[in-house]
Amino acid sequence: MKCAQKSFRLPSMGRGCHLVTSDIQKQIAPMLAGLECGMLNVFLQHTSASLTINENCDPDVRVDMETFLRRVVPEGHGSSVPWTHTAEGPDDMPAHVKSSMFGASLSIPITKGRLSLGTWQGIWLCEHRDHASSRSVVCTVMGA
Amino acid sequence: MKCAQKSFRLPSMGRGCHLVTSDIQKQIAPMLAGLECGMLNVFLQHTSASLTINENCDPDVRVDMETFLRRVVPEGHGSSVPWTHTAEGPDDMPAHVKSSMFGASLSIPITKGRLSLGTWQGIWLCEHRDHASSRSVVCTVMGA
Amino acid sequence: MKCAQKSFRLPSMGRGCHLVTSDIQKQIAPMLAGLECGMLNVFLQHTSASLTINENCDPDVRVDMETFLRRVVPEGHGSSVPWTHTAEGPDDMPAHVKSSMFGASLSIPITKGRLSLGTWQGIWLCEHRDHASSRSVVCTVMGA
Repeated sequence: MKCAQKSFRLPSMGRGCHLVTSDIQKQIAPMLAGLECGMLNVFLQHTSASLTINENCDPDVRVDMETFLRRVVPEGHGSSVPWTHTAEGPDDMPAHVKSSMFGASLSIPITKGRLSLGTWQGIWLCEHRDHASSRSVVCTVMGA
Repeated sequence: MKCAQKSFRLPSMGRGCHLVTSDIQKQIAPMLAGLECGMLNVFLQHTSASLTINENCDPDVRVDMETFLRRVVPEGHGSSVPWTHTAEGPDDMPAHVKSSMFGASLSIPITKGRLSLGTWQGIWLCEHRDHASSRSVVCTVMGA
Repeated sequence: MKCAQKSFRLPSMGRGCHLVTSDIQKQIAPMLAGLECGMLNVFLQHTSASLTINENCDPDVRVDMETFLRRVVPEGHGSSVPWTHTAEGPDDMPAHVKSSMFGASLSIPITKGRLSLGTWQGIWLCEHRDHASSRSVVCTVMGA
């Protein structure tokens, strides 16, 4: 059994849902090599973006997910929204809500040196701020 | 420390929330045996169903959870819904949304050869499609 | 590689979101010591509260999160709500929903004996019942 870890940054992305499976895989490929059985954890060190697993093919799914998030978490100015935490702009508090809805930590099994994702599954970074900088990620691999 | 893994399918289920604790436990019982301390990860290899932990007793909770999901994610045809990904039917995009809301990966502690679930906790498979086939699951156990 | 586990209770808290990072850290400090690389899992053994990672500074974010949760999950009496599981009061079924929305299990990387949380990240216990007793938590640390 071993534990290996790598920290890196994903480049700044526009608001919305982004497929980052290959970005993650490139970073962790050396850590997966030779592992028969294990787990990968992808951890996002931020509170206004999130990680989730969803459709890796049709980009419309990512567009529709952003549509859902904008509908379920009200956004705007002044009395049109119920938030008190508004100093950093109308997208700030909604971003915190969405971060907890999807979460910042993903655990994915590793089998014979590869991520055991389903045929249609990919890793998404969901960026909830309008103008975000790059995002810090910690990947941890444990297994044998 | 050891790592063990098992892939299997849960049978096709109707749309809604289903208690699958005993189905999972039957599959992984040999992997838990003898483990003093560890973790189980249950990973669903799909993007239109989800796993969650919730009430293991009153089935009304599972009915009400499905009611909530139908209310929070709009479903329907044509201009009544905001989705662009509609080729596979009105339940398709809502299923993707619900999959990310609850997630496809569950981590549960193992103590003295048993899952450390609370008294009222069970593992649920939430099926978000109207007509789904069986669902593929990867269970990974790590510990000592 | 080693696995260590500790069960303890967090004291009864009022409904809402509470920052519990230091409570957790105090409990697990001896388990983190000397670990170069690993993972912490925090597991809540209940179905009417949840764990999430979010802002560790401005308490307004926690207030606003509770505001969001009350808006997105309808609460009330009789025909004003769609729930059938109502025997334990109007806050009962909404609490189950919120528990699945945020989840009861958190996985956080460990680096050089410390949790690898981002600068602004803290661990929250979100209490969804009006009158809850203390909450049971199982912390599991694995690593080397």
